[in-house]
Amino acid sequence: MATDRFVKRRNGVLRKLKAVGADALLVTNFTNVTYLTGFSGDDSFLLVSRTATVLISDGRYETQIADECPGLDVHIRPQKIGIVAAAAKIAARAKIANLGFESNSTTVDESEGLRTALKSAELVPVSGLVEELRLCKDASEVAALREAVTQAEKGFEVLKATLRGEQTELQVAHDLEHSMRSFGATGSSFAPIVAVGAHAALPHATPRRVLISDADFVLVDWGADGPTGYKSDLTRVLVTGKISAKLEKIYRVVLNAQLAGIRNVRPGARCCDVDAAARKVIEDAGFGKKFNHGLGHGLGLDIHEGPRLNSMTEMELKPGMVVTVEPGIYLPGWGGVRIEDDVLVTKDGHDVLTSSPKKFDEIVLS
Amino acid sequence: MATDRFVKRRNGVLRKLKAVGADALLVTNFTNVTYLTGFSGDDSFLLVSRTATVLISDGRYETQIADECPGLDVHIRPQKIGIVAAAAKIAARAKIANLGFESNSTTVDESEGLRTALKSAELVPVSGLVEELRLCKDASEVAALREAVTQAEKGFEVLKATLRGEQTELQVAHDLEHSMRSFGATGSSFAPIVAVGAHAALPHATPRRVLISDADFVLVDWGADGPTGYKSDLTRVLVTGKISAKLEKIYRVVLNAQLAGIRNVRPGARCCDVDAAARKVIEDAGFGKKFNHGLGHGLGLDIHEGPRLNSMTEMELKPGMVVTVEPGIYLPGWGGVRIEDDVLVTKDGHDVLTSSPKKFDEIVLS
Repeated sequence: MATDRFVKRRNGVLRKLKAVGADALLVTNFTNVTYLTGFSGDDSFLLVSRTATVLISDGRYETQIADECPGLDVHIRPQKIGIVAAAAKIAARAKIANLGFESNSTTVDESEGLRTALKSAELVPVSGLVEELRLCKDASEVAALREAVTQAEKGFEVLKATLRGEQTELQVAHDLEHSMRSFGATGSSFAPIVAVGAHAALPHATPRRVLISDADFVLVDWGADGPTGYKSDLTRVLVTGKISAKLEKIYRVVLNAQLAGIRNVRPGARCCDVDAAARKVIEDAGFGKKFNHGLGHGLGLDIHEGPRLNSMTEMELKPGMVVTVEPGIYLPGWGGVRIEDDVLVTKDGHDVLTSSPKKFDEIVLS
Repeated sequence: MATDRFVKRRNGVLRKLKAVGADALLVTNFTNVTYLTGFSGDDSFLLVSRTATVLISDGRYETQIADECPGLDVHIRPQKIGIVAAAAKIAARAKIANLGFESNSTTVDESEGLRTALKSAELVPVSGLVEELRLCKDASEVAALREAVTQAEKGFEVLKATLRGEQTELQVAHDLEHSMRSFGATGSSFAPIVAVGAHAALPHATPRRVLISDADFVLVDWGADGPTGYKSDLTRVLVTGKISAKLEKIYRVVLNAQLAGIRNVRPGARCCDVDAAARKVIEDAGFGKKFNHGLGHGLGLDIHEGPRLNSMTEMELKPGMVVTVEPGIYLPGWGGVRIEDDVLVTKDGHDVLTSSPKKFDEIVLS
């Protein structure tokens, strides 16, 4: 049954709850609610306990929940009762004595509202419990991530096939999202970056009304939001004009750094060591200070989630984790190169989910 | 100077702060930060006090902040220091004794983090202060809303000009967003609803892979996200097949209800009374139970903000408020009709910002 995986995930919550001394968890982060139920809407909380599991939502979502979460207990609150008061009522009815709540997403007003409405229970702040479960993806999640990768890569093939010098960065970004949607994505997983020349030196460049022909290369950082909310995230550079020796040199350094990073992705490797392996290639080439961000981040239902691949994170990688590997070299005034793939940690190493061509001769369109 | 309006808004915060006994406000809601500074990014807090106004952000946004907020004091935190710790440092440096913080957007973990890092100050929960200022739009905001309306309406004209029976709801929704972008929108202000026939009976229908030709009419609920973040929100029904007497009857009732609602939008009118004026028309026609949501909501930087036009809200309208007026009649199994416009409260009445044709003969495309 399709719902089995959600039951399994909620059982994971229950196991972890014991350790924090709570007999239920009120899940207030909407993405965590999706992870634990399959419900894709928002404005809904989930109560998880041994005796009761209840999705607390409102009338707008009644039909959708019945479709997406067959068999799940649902409380549809009336318009006049807020979501916090409704959650307190459900927790009281379930006779919860120690109610855990997600203190990293619950607002101060919401927690005060709970405290006032729920005199019968102790409130226990619980931080990042569901996020920890989400670190390692199950088979259905990996399949959904692969789907989002395919949508992104097919969209990028259209971009390459249609790219013209008289398009602006902004038009290319908009057309890319439109293409990904034609392949089944609900949209972009984040606002795509399309940046030519010097603008590519900004890691978070916003597309402008500037022509693609205004420079000799363009950096594209994009991803698809798949139908069940799982996301992809890639970066490629395309050469659209003159091939310069400087670009080729920097590109090869970044590619070698990226390949070194990917080679180090395996169970037991510390995040900081994967970062260091890629960083060393860039440092050895003399560009260490020009790679001013972490190597990558986890991705799944959120475009940025754990684990973080950077110099501070000592967490060890485990099978099922999915991370981006995206080193870059940025030279203000000249431009930047970043190459990004999505990598699954497997039992005995890794599996690169993305496959858009990235050898230097493959990125030259001119 | 373009920054004047932001100084004016921050002065509004200072005036309201006195009443709550705080000498500074830490703004943690990113949309409120945008409202008070013009900075369009996220992951940034703002400290507002009489002696210091500081935007707390990180390296990714340094260039963008310099562009968007000339003259504003900025603290760029290093990667290793979190945003809460950075904010505490800035508040301590400014010698704040009573630090207000937005308790309706600050998480429990963030407020605990502040408490730990900032021993020198009392923390004062402050709820909805900036949201209250945002209720009444100034001239620049109204201009931005008008821009978002134009982008949405131009996109809809393209939709009408290109609509074909062999398109799916989903394709029409995607093409609509693409069109709005070609007119300068950054995207949709929310996922557009395109729903034919019976599906239009769901107030929050998700577009499907179902052909436009599968029914005789289509409901479109859409809006544009303008370049500075202000949003529009409209609904129209289009007749694409047979004109039925039932549809025409229901349409005319909804339109009369909507016009009655709009006529009642003026300074001093209570929100509940505006709702009642529209609702009465639908009730008198015998469809009262088929209009199962509030009449409308405020809009601005958020697609849903105050004031709410519904039967429970007694707030009086004031000049500068902008609300949607969107009654509907929903008949499960048959379909639904909703008509929505965006209306500005003026000194002596109202100004309807939207102008897409809505007379019955104007919505017949077949």
